[in-house]
Amino acid sequence: MTIIGIDPGSRLTGFGVIEKSGYQFRYLDHGVISIPLQLTFAERLAYLAKMLRPLWSKYPQSVTVVEKVFLGKNVDSAFKLGHARGVCLLVAAEHGSPVFEYASRSVKKSLTGNGGASKDQVQLMVQQFLQTKIQGLHDGTDALALAICHFYEWEKQAIIQRLGRVPHSYP
Amino acid sequence: MTIIGIDPGSRLTGFGVIEKSGYQFRYLDHGVISIPLQLTFAERLAYLAKMLRPLWSKYPQSVTVVEKVFLGKNVDSAFKLGHARGVCLLVAAEHGSPVFEYASRSVKKSLTGNGGASKDQVQLMVQQFLQTKIQGLHDGTDALALAICHFYEWEKQAIIQRLGRVPHSYP
Repeated sequence: MTIIGIDPGSRLTGFGVIEKSGYQFRYLDHGVISIPLQLTFAERLAYLAKMLRPLWSKYPQSVTVVEKVFLGKNVDSAFKLGHARGVCLLVAAEHGSPVFEYASRSVKKSLTGNGGASKDQVQLMVQQFLQTKIQGLHDGTDALALAICHFYEWEKQAIIQRLGRVPHSYP
Repeated sequence: MTIIGIDPGSRLTGFGVIEKSGYQFRYLDHGVISIPLQLTFAERLAYLAKMLRPLWSKYPQSVTVVEKVFLGKNVDSAFKLGHARGVCLLVAAEHGSPVFEYASRSVKKSLTGNGGASKDQVQLMVQQFLQTKIQGLHDGTDALALAICHFYEWEKQAIIQRLGRVPHSYP
C-alpha cells in the first residue's frame, strides 16, 4: 500500500510518496510540480492534472493525503487555492484513491511533537524518518510529511482497535 | 461554433449550450448537474467531471463561458466553490475549449439592460432570445445567459473590428 501526500498550490504543488509495509514505511518518491505561468488559469489546472495523473497510475493501491487548509481572511487566495486543490482531489478520486485530510498543525505535531514546528524542523524529521536526504522545495517535503503523518495515524488506529483503548505513550 | 455556459457550484452546476451561426444563435441544450450528497467531497468532484465531460465531447468546436465570481466575505464558501469551479475549468481546458469569464452584473446588463435584474427577468429574456420555454432550476438558465452574453460580446468585438470604433447604440 502506498501513501501519496499532496500539498496543493495554484503555482507549486508538492507530492511525496511512501510505501507502507507492515509497521514500517519507506521512501518512494517526491517532487514539486511547477506550473508554467504563461498558461491561462484553466490551462494551468489541466497541466496540473496531466502532471499528477501518472502518480496514481504508477501506484494504483494508494491512499491520498492532503492538507486540511486553515483558511485565513484572504478570500481571493482561498478561492484560487480551491481550484488547484479541487483538481488534486478530483484526480485522486478518479483513480479510486481514498482521500484523508490533516491540518498542518497535526502533521507538525505528529512528526516533531510540536504543532508550531518550523519548515526546517519538519524537513529534518522527514529525513530522519525516511533515512534519505530530501532536497528541493519545501512543498515536496511537506507532502512527504503528510504521508508520514497518515502512516502514524493509521498505525495508531490499528493499535486502538487491537487494544480497545488509546495507548498511553503514542505520538 | 458552440458556446457552452457553465454556472459552477459545489452542489448544483448549471450548463447551457447555444450554437452560433453567423450573426444568429439557437438553443441546443441546458440542464443542471445535481451532485449526490452521500459522496465524499473528492468523489463529488469526480462525479461532476464525469457528468461534464460528455458536453465538450459532444460539441468539440466550442468555447466555454463561466461566471467571473464576485467573492463575498465568506472564505469557506469561496474555497468550496473554487474546488467545483476548478473542475469545470479543467474539463474545458482538457478539451481545448477556450474559457471566457463575465461577471454576473455584465451578463444581466447584456441581456436585460439592467445589471441588477432579478433571476426571473433574466429567465424571461433568455426565453425571448432563444424562443424556447426554459424550465427547471435557475442554474441552467444562468448558464444559458452566460452563453448568450458571450455571443453578444463576440459580435460586438467583431463589429468594433470592422468599424474600427465602438458603435454608438450597441448593448
